[in-house]
Amino acid sequence: MDRSIRTDLALEAEALRREERPDGRTPEGVSTACVRRGSFAVTTVRVLDARGEAALGKPQGTYVTIELDSLIRREENAFSEASALLAEELRGLLPLRPGEPCLVVGLGNREITPDAVGPDAVDCIMVTRHLTEALPDAFGGFRPVCAVCSGVLGTTGIESGSLVRAVADSVHPAAVVAIDALASRSPDRLCRTVQISDTGIVPGSGVGNARQALNRETLGVPVVAVGVPTVVDAATLALDLSSRAGLHPDPAAFGDAGGMIVTPREIDKNVRDIAKLIGYALNLALHDGLTIEDVDMFLS
Amino acid sequence: MDRSIRTDLALEAEALRREERPDGRTPEGVSTACVRRGSFAVTTVRVLDARGEAALGKPQGTYVTIELDSLIRREENAFSEASALLAEELRGLLPLRPGEPCLVVGLGNREITPDAVGPDAVDCIMVTRHLTEALPDAFGGFRPVCAVCSGVLGTTGIESGSLVRAVADSVHPAAVVAIDALASRSPDRLCRTVQISDTGIVPGSGVGNARQALNRETLGVPVVAVGVPTVVDAATLALDLSSRAGLHPDPAAFGDAGGMIVTPREIDKNVRDIAKLIGYALNLALHDGLTIEDVDMFLS
Amino acid sequence: MDRSIRTDLALEAEALRREERPDGRTPEGVSTACVRRGSFAVTTVRVLDARGEAALGKPQGTYVTIELDSLIRREENAFSEASALLAEELRGLLPLRPGEPCLVVGLGNREITPDAVGPDAVDCIMVTRHLTEALPDAFGGFRPVCAVCSGVLGTTGIESGSLVRAVADSVHPAAVVAIDALASRSPDRLCRTVQISDTGIVPGSGVGNARQALNRETLGVPVVAVGVPTVVDAATLALDLSSRAGLHPDPAAFGDAGGMIVTPREIDKNVRDIAKLIGYALNLALHDGLTIEDVDMFLS
Amino acid sequence: MDRSIRTDLALEAEALRREERPDGRTPEGVSTACVRRGSFAVTTVRVLDARGEAALGKPQGTYVTIELDSLIRREENAFSEASALLAEELRGLLPLRPGEPCLVVGLGNREITPDAVGPDAVDCIMVTRHLTEALPDAFGGFRPVCAVCSGVLGTTGIESGSLVRAVADSVHPAAVVAIDALASRSPDRLCRTVQISDTGIVPGSGVGNARQALNRETLGVPVVAVGVPTVVDAATLALDLSSRAGLHPDPAAFGDAGGMIVTPREIDKNVRDIAKLIGYALNLALHDGLTIEDVDMFLS
Repeated sequence: MDRSIRTDLALEAEALRREERPDGRTPEGVSTACVRRGSFAVTTVRVLDARGEAALGKPQGTYVTIELDSLIRREENAFSEASALLAEELRGLLPLRPGEPCLVVGLGNREITPDAVGPDAVDCIMVTRHLTEALPDAFGGFRPVCAVCSGVLGTTGIESGSLVRAVADSVHPAAVVAIDALASRSPDRLCRTVQISDTGIVPGSGVGNARQALNRETLGVPVVAVGVPTVVDAATLALDLSSRAGLHPDPAAFGDAGGMIVTPREIDKNVRDIAKLIGYALNLALHDGLTIEDVDMFLS
Repeated sequence: MDRSIRTDLALEAEALRREERPDGRTPEGVSTACVRRGSFAVTTVRVLDARGEAALGKPQGTYVTIELDSLIRREENAFSEASALLAEELRGLLPLRPGEPCLVVGLGNREITPDAVGPDAVDCIMVTRHLTEALPDAFGGFRPVCAVCSGVLGTTGIESGSLVRAVADSVHPAAVVAIDALASRSPDRLCRTVQISDTGIVPGSGVGNARQALNRETLGVPVVAVGVPTVVDAATLALDLSSRAGLHPDPAAFGDAGGMIVTPREIDKNVRDIAKLIGYALNLALHDGLTIEDVDMFLS
Repeated sequence: MDRSIRTDLALEAEALRREERPDGRTPEGVSTACVRRGSFAVTTVRVLDARGEAALGKPQGTYVTIELDSLIRREENAFSEASALLAEELRGLLPLRPGEPCLVVGLGNREITPDAVGPDAVDCIMVTRHLTEALPDAFGGFRPVCAVCSGVLGTTGIESGSLVRAVADSVHPAAVVAIDALASRSPDRLCRTVQISDTGIVPGSGVGNARQALNRETLGVPVVAVGVPTVVDAATLALDLSSRAGLHPDPAAFGDAGGMIVTPREIDKNVRDIAKLIGYALNLALHDGLTIEDVDMFLS
Repeated sequence: MDRSIRTDLALEAEALRREERPDGRTPEGVSTACVRRGSFAVTTVRVLDARGEAALGKPQGTYVTIELDSLIRREENAFSEASALLAEELRGLLPLRPGEPCLVVGLGNREITPDAVGPDAVDCIMVTRHLTEALPDAFGGFRPVCAVCSGVLGTTGIESGSLVRAVADSVHPAAVVAIDALASRSPDRLCRTVQISDTGIVPGSGVGNARQALNRETLGVPVVAVGVPTVVDAATLALDLSSRAGLHPDPAAFGDAGGMIVTPREIDKNVRDIAKLIGYALNLALHDGLTIEDVDMFLS
């Protein structure tokens, strides 16, 4: 398996495996389904068993990817339609009963633009836990939601995983939602694709650092991960473009792109926009009967 | 006792009590001492017993106040002299043995300028805990230091006190330093005075909300509080100026200044500057043999 | 005339003069009218001649003040109603024919929160001049609008007045709108009152520095000033509260509040909010047939 | 000539032309010289005549490129050595006599990180024009320096070129320094290379839009351009890596990288750091006898 192409998206990993196979079929232990929902494409990849885990390098579970091209084209009502759709998919993965508390975690580094999608999304979360406790009559209709940004090791000296566990042990949520920036293979997906999964997440990406994972095993409650690709590894882009040009370069030759990333030119604005979408969709998913205007009013 | 004049500074509270007393003396259960250290005035107020607690409305312990007027006048070397002096006073209150870990906490709200001194100071802290763990040979000379900003209830839904306790339970520091913005009586002290004490702190100020306190009782380890006055309550200012003008207004008449604060015009810059001083002084206090240039290099 | 109470609002200056007069009447050469428009109070002060100029210390012209208390109480639709009303008043003072170009200027210092209302408002202006030039078919329905922030002397080395004149000489607008922060007497008006006038403005406030003025004489075209009080001078507040308490202190006794300002505690958020209102209202005033949603879409 | 590889650096353009030529020699009308200055490499490319202009696609003049690898490796004293060297090279190109005024212009968009190097550098410029005018006794030893950021067309509606011309016509500098972000071919040079030239600059890059150029013809005084590569065009990177891997792809195949850029992961911090270096070096070049500490003190 060619691991020199880096992606955190299950639907790209599945496509890569198909490209490598002589029969061009989905690997064993994996299922995929794609449906069109309004102007958005929704792809569900399921990793069913150990064969699927080995093939995709991702833990067993469901990965839903929503492609938001019409949002980017700024079609009318695109924001409200996209947030409604994303909210619905989040509800499908979040096993929360009415009134059960939820902890939302923004992973990543606010000071590094392509890594700021988690903290920026948390800025748009309706935090209600203290209100439901202090003013149950007025806010009893809301789910108790609390939110933290875990920072990064270099600014806190504490691993994100440890910090989130400490907070979860203290506030006892019924579920955790963790928002992070991802890497994709395709530049076309940057800042316009959201992946949600019921498998949890490993902050800082990569597989294998189990100590750091945020999932049901480490936190004791279901963990839904929400990710947005904001960068393509520069070597991945070069390899990929070369392949599409019919060339087959030695990946080792591209090593000197190390440390470089590919982003959209307007990455600052794009990250803010998609982070807002995620925040709003989560609010709609976590509380019943809200409108976009209600969220605007609450956050203003 | 006149509680309509609001101050978080022990040396102002002591002066107020003296003003109220016919004999003009320091109240029982309180001792004060003032020394000149270079171009800085250092005042130590000790609350010795329950009588002192009642008189000043502050828990038993030592409160050291450093007035930094020469820093504000931007005299040459003022920054390095002030940080050296503040570091020395911090070492005097911090009961840390070599190599013992320390947790630094920035209280307050980064989005409200006069409340941002805690978070801004944490930005200047040399975070070393992960480095001393991962690279003990290279970083063994440093004390393990980790740092968090607790945010505010409205943005996290979690009380600062609970959050800090959760983190402290997870990382097991030998001492905690908590940095917060304060209110003073005198506008002359704004952003140019630092109070450090060994009594801990109640986030958001005020006395009595024991559930929220950060101190040895709640965290199980010594807690040193570092505070900077950044605002004067507008009613306090009006009362105070009136009194100095020989008038004796009814405090109730000043109630409609409520919600208003008095700050220096250049509050944004002043808060950044004093926060940097606190961060640097803490670094010098926590690690042996550092220079200002070492801190510059580490943080850059 | 008592000049120790500082205010940039014509309606406060007029009220002060009335308070000082034995007959309690509006000074000669000044007229005032107050109407209720929906949930907003609109006061028009006209300085009619030299007697009025001397009485109020303000040049001849019309000063319209809108008090936005219902906006602050966050009543439903308050933003759209306030921006519609403010747009209407702006149209009344702006002598622009269809298609004539307009230059919007943000005065003040973006780095000092209470002084940032001008630059922040400019961030919400729909800039169209380059579009109407390059794509007249698509954007012909828009008025050509350009916008600059003049910065402050300490960061540019160039007086705001000189910079705006240089730009106006280059782009030849038919009118200039200049937005600035003001000082008021009453803390109740901070960030909730907008004054618009057809007299132009002197950046940095105060009267007499004619070299700096932005008005028809210096720019050759009509200049509408839009101002928001964001600070009360601390000595003014103390004097004012004392007076209301029935005391009559010597203003000189309050001199040591110098350099201190009174602001709302949430000044950062309040300035952003009122700046957005001004930007949106100006967009509605400058272009025909726009809705709030159109402005949202254009600026996003 | 292969124009599909995009670069704004004269030394890269010259190298590209050599690679294309069978004889591998510097094109006619161009001269190059490289010297080692301490731990920095300084390359001077001279475009001597029309043949050189055609070969490199750049106007006649001198282009000095300084590679700052030791700065990036954070060697001790690297900042002070780099700023001293850069100041010396700037003095060599700036034809300013003592006391003659200078206008510094930051081009680019502060809101787009890789485009913010100009505005960020201006934040570090010692602005003295108003001080030398108002306080000639105290500040007579300083050169009058003023500074503006021209913003971008989308936020002002005014072309950068027009705005700078308007300001220059108003303040009559003896020379203009314009700072902008550039694109390079090689990712290794991002944020670690500075190009200075005496040819002026075309904001937003590219050649041919004469209307926009900032140079002696349009401004009437010498214009020194200071540029830092902060991005590599994604298609350029892919082409370049492919070529180095011995492949010869059709550039058209790489078109779909359009709109994507390659940057270092830590672009936010890297841009701030190099912008500070440029600002400090310019201060040292413009005023006699300054030290880094003097600049620190002035700007604080």
